[in-house]
Amino acid sequence: MRVLVLDGPNLNLLGTREPGRYGTRTLAEIRSDLERLGADLGVDLTFVQSSAEGDLVDAVQAASGSVDGVLANPAAYTHTSIALRDAFLATGLPFVEVHLSNVHGREPFRRRSLLADVAVGVVAGFGPDSYLLGLRGLVAHLEASGR
Amino acid sequence: MRVLVLDGPNLNLLGTREPGRYGTRTLAEIRSDLERLGADLGVDLTFVQSSAEGDLVDAVQAASGSVDGVLANPAAYTHTSIALRDAFLATGLPFVEVHLSNVHGREPFRRRSLLADVAVGVVAGFGPDSYLLGLRGLVAHLEASGR
Amino acid sequence: MRVLVLDGPNLNLLGTREPGRYGTRTLAEIRSDLERLGADLGVDLTFVQSSAEGDLVDAVQAASGSVDGVLANPAAYTHTSIALRDAFLATGLPFVEVHLSNVHGREPFRRRSLLADVAVGVVAGFGPDSYLLGLRGLVAHLEASGR
Amino acid sequence: MRVLVLDGPNLNLLGTREPGRYGTRTLAEIRSDLERLGADLGVDLTFVQSSAEGDLVDAVQAASGSVDGVLANPAAYTHTSIALRDAFLATGLPFVEVHLSNVHGREPFRRRSLLADVAVGVVAGFGPDSYLLGLRGLVAHLEASGR
Amino acid sequence: MRVLVLDGPNLNLLGTREPGRYGTRTLAEIRSDLERLGADLGVDLTFVQSSAEGDLVDAVQAASGSVDGVLANPAAYTHTSIALRDAFLATGLPFVEVHLSNVHGREPFRRRSLLADVAVGVVAGFGPDSYLLGLRGLVAHLEASGR
Amino acid sequence: MRVLVLDGPNLNLLGTREPGRYGTRTLAEIRSDLERLGADLGVDLTFVQSSAEGDLVDAVQAASGSVDGVLANPAAYTHTSIALRDAFLATGLPFVEVHLSNVHGREPFRRRSLLADVAVGVVAGFGPDSYLLGLRGLVAHLEASGR
Amino acid sequence: MRVLVLDGPNLNLLGTREPGRYGTRTLAEIRSDLERLGADLGVDLTFVQSSAEGDLVDAVQAASGSVDGVLANPAAYTHTSIALRDAFLATGLPFVEVHLSNVHGREPFRRRSLLADVAVGVVAGFGPDSYLLGLRGLVAHLEASGR
Amino acid sequence: MRVLVLDGPNLNLLGTREPGRYGTRTLAEIRSDLERLGADLGVDLTFVQSSAEGDLVDAVQAASGSVDGVLANPAAYTHTSIALRDAFLATGLPFVEVHLSNVHGREPFRRRSLLADVAVGVVAGFGPDSYLLGLRGLVAHLEASGR
Amino acid sequence: MRVLVLDGPNLNLLGTREPGRYGTRTLAEIRSDLERLGADLGVDLTFVQSSAEGDLVDAVQAASGSVDGVLANPAAYTHTSIALRDAFLATGLPFVEVHLSNVHGREPFRRRSLLADVAVGVVAGFGPDSYLLGLRGLVAHLEASGR
Amino acid sequence: MRVLVLDGPNLNLLGTREPGRYGTRTLAEIRSDLERLGADLGVDLTFVQSSAEGDLVDAVQAASGSVDGVLANPAAYTHTSIALRDAFLATGLPFVEVHLSNVHGREPFRRRSLLADVAVGVVAGFGPDSYLLGLRGLVAHLEASGR
Amino acid sequence: MRVLVLDGPNLNLLGTREPGRYGTRTLAEIRSDLERLGADLGVDLTFVQSSAEGDLVDAVQAASGSVDGVLANPAAYTHTSIALRDAFLATGLPFVEVHLSNVHGREPFRRRSLLADVAVGVVAGFGPDSYLLGLRGLVAHLEASGR
Amino acid sequence: MRVLVLDGPNLNLLGTREPGRYGTRTLAEIRSDLERLGADLGVDLTFVQSSAEGDLVDAVQAASGSVDGVLANPAAYTHTSIALRDAFLATGLPFVEVHLSNVHGREPFRRRSLLADVAVGVVAGFGPDSYLLGLRGLVAHLEASGR
Repeated sequence: MRVLVLDGPNLNLLGTREPGRYGTRTLAEIRSDLERLGADLGVDLTFVQSSAEGDLVDAVQAASGSVDGVLANPAAYTHTSIALRDAFLATGLPFVEVHLSNVHGREPFRRRSLLADVAVGVVAGFGPDSYLLGLRGLVAHLEASGR
Repeated sequence: MRVLVLDGPNLNLLGTREPGRYGTRTLAEIRSDLERLGADLGVDLTFVQSSAEGDLVDAVQAASGSVDGVLANPAAYTHTSIALRDAFLATGLPFVEVHLSNVHGREPFRRRSLLADVAVGVVAGFGPDSYLLGLRGLVAHLEASGR
Repeated sequence: MRVLVLDGPNLNLLGTREPGRYGTRTLAEIRSDLERLGADLGVDLTFVQSSAEGDLVDAVQAASGSVDGVLANPAAYTHTSIALRDAFLATGLPFVEVHLSNVHGREPFRRRSLLADVAVGVVAGFGPDSYLLGLRGLVAHLEASGR
Repeated sequence: MRVLVLDGPNLNLLGTREPGRYGTRTLAEIRSDLERLGADLGVDLTFVQSSAEGDLVDAVQAASGSVDGVLANPAAYTHTSIALRDAFLATGLPFVEVHLSNVHGREPFRRRSLLADVAVGVVAGFGPDSYLLGLRGLVAHLEASGR
Repeated sequence: MRVLVLDGPNLNLLGTREPGRYGTRTLAEIRSDLERLGADLGVDLTFVQSSAEGDLVDAVQAASGSVDGVLANPAAYTHTSIALRDAFLATGLPFVEVHLSNVHGREPFRRRSLLADVAVGVVAGFGPDSYLLGLRGLVAHLEASGR
Repeated sequence: MRVLVLDGPNLNLLGTREPGRYGTRTLAEIRSDLERLGADLGVDLTFVQSSAEGDLVDAVQAASGSVDGVLANPAAYTHTSIALRDAFLATGLPFVEVHLSNVHGREPFRRRSLLADVAVGVVAGFGPDSYLLGLRGLVAHLEASGR
Repeated sequence: MRVLVLDGPNLNLLGTREPGRYGTRTLAEIRSDLERLGADLGVDLTFVQSSAEGDLVDAVQAASGSVDGVLANPAAYTHTSIALRDAFLATGLPFVEVHLSNVHGREPFRRRSLLADVAVGVVAGFGPDSYLLGLRGLVAHLEASGR
Repeated sequence: MRVLVLDGPNLNLLGTREPGRYGTRTLAEIRSDLERLGADLGVDLTFVQSSAEGDLVDAVQAASGSVDGVLANPAAYTHTSIALRDAFLATGLPFVEVHLSNVHGREPFRRRSLLADVAVGVVAGFGPDSYLLGLRGLVAHLEASGR
Repeated sequence: MRVLVLDGPNLNLLGTREPGRYGTRTLAEIRSDLERLGADLGVDLTFVQSSAEGDLVDAVQAASGSVDGVLANPAAYTHTSIALRDAFLATGLPFVEVHLSNVHGREPFRRRSLLADVAVGVVAGFGPDSYLLGLRGLVAHLEASGR
Repeated sequence: MRVLVLDGPNLNLLGTREPGRYGTRTLAEIRSDLERLGADLGVDLTFVQSSAEGDLVDAVQAASGSVDGVLANPAAYTHTSIALRDAFLATGLPFVEVHLSNVHGREPFRRRSLLADVAVGVVAGFGPDSYLLGLRGLVAHLEASGR
Repeated sequence: MRVLVLDGPNLNLLGTREPGRYGTRTLAEIRSDLERLGADLGVDLTFVQSSAEGDLVDAVQAASGSVDGVLANPAAYTHTSIALRDAFLATGLPFVEVHLSNVHGREPFRRRSLLADVAVGVVAGFGPDSYLLGLRGLVAHLEASGR
Repeated sequence: MRVLVLDGPNLNLLGTREPGRYGTRTLAEIRSDLERLGADLGVDLTFVQSSAEGDLVDAVQAASGSVDGVLANPAAYTHTSIALRDAFLATGLPFVEVHLSNVHGREPFRRRSLLADVAVGVVAGFGPDSYLLGLRGLVAHLEASGR
């Protein structure tokens, strides 16, 4: 089973960015954790991170055919990108939306997701563990649906 | 570590209720799955399910002092119960909100949670796996915060 | 054919409660009228009234399997109870929503029903006759759909 | 007792129009059913159907003095016609609003009625039976108010 | 100078319609008053009243070229008719909007006028005097603008 | 009969203020016109103009007992002053609201009047003639109500 | 192939009505252009124009069975007529909505169409060419769907 | 004079619940204070506290006939319970709404009360003193209205 | 302890202003009642009433340093004055907001207070007793906070 | 005459993306169709497609001076990109907005276009034919305006 | 060049008012800074500060003819005063709106300015420097527009 | 002191883009002006302009550590980019938001800034001078906060 881990803008700064909110763990460390869990679950992971909405759209398109699902933390684009939503709809790739922080307790504009209603599921608020939980959920979903 | 698993109205019907949406797994089976995972994680679980908002409020109050956290699927009361929110605020019990279905893709009144912004985190859309992922997330949170 | 007649909060006060708005007929008298009509139509009726949202949810669940439909005047819970809506959805019981008064001419928060869009139909404004008309409509619907 | 049965635009197409939603019974058949019930209840019926808002207004005005009440299915004009509302207010004719389909489960603009709050009552969702239930409700109301 | 006096639905019932709100003066009497004032001001008046939105549109179109302005009480269509607005815009006829009652103190849907912002001016709340004041205002406007 | 003519902020600039919108006639000239009409109608006029909301409130209070009604152009305070509304309600003085420009065709915040629903009537859009029409309407109203 | 060309209120004034916005071409000239294009495309055209909402509803009903589709410029009724929407739904006639002006750049109430979501497609902003483009689009659609 | 003191969900936790917001005084201590003041004012008090909406409704109904008024702190149900509102309307019992904290400075959903507009009055923000002030206000009201 | 009693526009008319709503007690009588209660509680009172928003702002500024708190009935300015809010914030003076009538049951624009969320507390609906209750609440608050 | 055909994100997937909604025709095939029509109309076409908002902005800027107009299907950016709107405003390039699907019948966020009000016109719902109709409309517009 | 510096309510308290938000610099000190900068730029300054909306309106009117522009910090009246807006519109005086604090990060009601859209420009968030930057901007604007 | 000057989409077109709104000064000329002022103030400037949201995010990230603050004119992204907001939050870089035109007097969607509430301050409406004033404000802020 192959999964793309897709990270949106500013997540490359993890560990230094507002550590009170996002923790001190870097994106590299989170990726290591994910690879360890992926090995346990028998999943090959590839990683893309970008600040550009268009790059994320291209990454989803490029992954179509070569991965079974996407673990996505689109960060700010969660709330503004119809293009990313359309990329998921166009490719039909199942994806799980994850967030480090609890978006429900922040600015009102972070409460609306343009992706969640077409996602398999959503995990938010557990810090770096959101990724691990999301990967477990995605894999279970893919197995259950016979992919 | 002790955790209360709190289920709201109509979840006792799981397995028969709209199986196309909620799956065929019963609440008893989900509880067994949770106990198995709880054993792995070293967590003792207690269970409460009720159709009555007041019972759920009482259950949270009663659990205060005897559990370390709550895994809650408040179902319909997620969207209407300020009383339950206040019970969590009053006891200070950390809790994780879980949903079987992806609430973001349903009726508009299911998009507003009166609990999510004061929860540790939220997991939604993975069917019965939402409970398992939520328990993992809660336990990790309790360990990280030294409870 | 068996039908549950479900009455929500404060309807036990009928006859004394705001008679200018709700009339002088008591709930017991309305039930007698319904039983008389039920006998004509060949329908067995059972009755539940409660002030508690959870009791109404439990009554719908308990009726599942033993009745063919529900004649419901959920009163205040019409406008606030997603739990009751979910009970009807979960059991799949067909139901008709009735109101004594014309809810469209009252406070704005009484104009929104959380049940009406999943009901068979709605009857409002005819005083105690709303129950009788609703029962006729429910029975005709059940007969037409072959229950 | 005399009652005007008033039908709005497109109801002349009943039986052929979206039968999945409105059933296969024609307006002529519904009128026959109504006349049969009217005979039982001792009510003389007259019928008007038109696609034109102004015709419906004129019909209400013309009926004033010669009928005791109106059984109205204003169809699309339910949601847009203040003129029809004013005709009922101006003549003081009691009327019952009926709908074949359950308008609460359709497009948002069908949820607002410009008539319901000044009607005696509303019946919706029972297909052609909505007319019969509405006529019973209207007659009971007229009798109770001594007309 | 020639002026069309245009009256919308239900105004033919003036004098009998809700006299507590609209007074006991009939439309014929108001027209007599207007003709007397018109004679004083040197204005020829023609009159149209209809329940049909399309008739009012046609009347405005037909008046174009033969009158200098319109004194309009569109009644219910004030709040719903974009077609009538477009007729005034299309013909370029200056018009004054009048109302018998004070529309600002009634139902919310009567507060929005689809005509007022393209009218010369508005007069509301003076009963039949609204027409007389409106005619004076229209004539003064036409004289000032050299028509 | 005695009438207070009340003018709000910036109306002292009439004639120089945005003449394209408000015309070239000064407030003094409008007052002369009003006095001439008042003489015809047998009405004594007093005049107050102020930029201060409190002054206008005081003027209404002071006029209570010594005038029969108020002709008011509250200008900007039309849209913001609950205090002025309360002054009219507290004294019970009948008043007519007038505007030089057609407020319905301007900024959205000018469409809401905090006074209109408790006024006798409203006249807007006729330039200085709005005052004359408003005075006629007020006088007719006072005569009709026997003041 | 047969197509009804349906025009709403005030379109009979084309050529003289606000030529800055709608151009100088008359409805007769547009019809000639359409007939020429219809001849090229092998389409017979019939034409209806009316100021009355009810007439347009009747025209759609009458066309059912004798035409394959409708090219409709409902003008003002685009934004207010649920009756016309229901006529299209009831007959099942495919239709294309066209507008001369670019409705997106005008008053807010012109941005909502009660028809567009059930139309085949929409063409707006090209002046008289909107009709020609709309006819091409409708014909291509009818051919593609095998009518 | 007899008064029911009605407390909603989570108020049994007073003294331990968010003491920074609600103070350290327990519900038992507040009741003692109220009894002392009641003795001064010649009022007999009875007390009910519950987490269940239905219990509060039942308590109001049961009190009808045996008390002269209600001092109510419905807590969370202030903002969500139409059933409680209806219980007060149905029994006609005068009541005063009190809150420990200043609800106007908290979450938006706490700003709407479904009870306040049918209460005698409201007291909020004075901590436990809100109860004492509310009792004084209720007693004065009952005396003034001759109960 | 010293307290400023601040009254907004039109409160000087108390006793004559809408007695059905506000009672027959004059402002002078209310002040006497307050002075009597103040003497009991050991509080010196000063009084300011004005129709002008600016005067009320100046009064709050002037009181800073010479009083311990403010008992304020800002009347209409409750709902519109950010300047008064800023005066309280700027001086840091604790204040209690009181209303004679129950503002929650009146016009929608009276439901929003621009002061309440920064007040100590609010008392509304008890007629002149609102002042007395408010003074008690303010004094208790000042004593508790050691002023 | 030269025209830039600008395509937004995910349109490169046409033919495979949700064929039920968008059809089976690829972007390459649509471009061939456009070139054939362009040859007929005497128009040279250039093509740009990108997933990146910034690329589309750059493409519009770069085209300024070398093309006469733009045929744009901005896809998801239609609803979110003020930058693209500004690019069209800044360059002054006339453009036509086209959509394959009927955006009026989809998610609410697809009903708002940030471009349409500054476009020449809009064509939506005709599948690949939308491009061909849009090109015809654009060319006719450019010819009429003398470019 | 002459400029009026206009300050609204509570700004006379600067230096003592919420120093955490507004800093410790007094209005007198800010005026000295402005005069120094004015001397550099060749501008004569006059100063007005008042808590009364009417005074500010009068000050703008009085300044008309004797100054070239206004540097205005209307404080709370920024958000509520249509009268002040009208004063600027009536006199045609160019003005710059300044704020000490960053109004965008405060209460929602401070985000709406009734003045900004008719100002030359806005400067907010720089503490006392906002005045200095605003004066520079105003002077540059006046020079550029040849005043 | 070092400052990054960040310009968003279409600002490279300054001087040619809608000169009536944005003036005839090019971005290169504005940069020269800024460098001259920077030299006076002892500030080193670097410049970035891009049409791509992701580039601006990357530029802010890259500047972190090497500059003391950012002078940003994000143009269209002001209103749509949560990603840019997050970049400023993540790096903690102080920034000033500037606009050439007065955004408050334009389209409604330009009134909302997703950046302003976390900026040091905002300057809008002074044309190219907005940059110079913004730089002065930023430098003063950085000096005051000891950077």
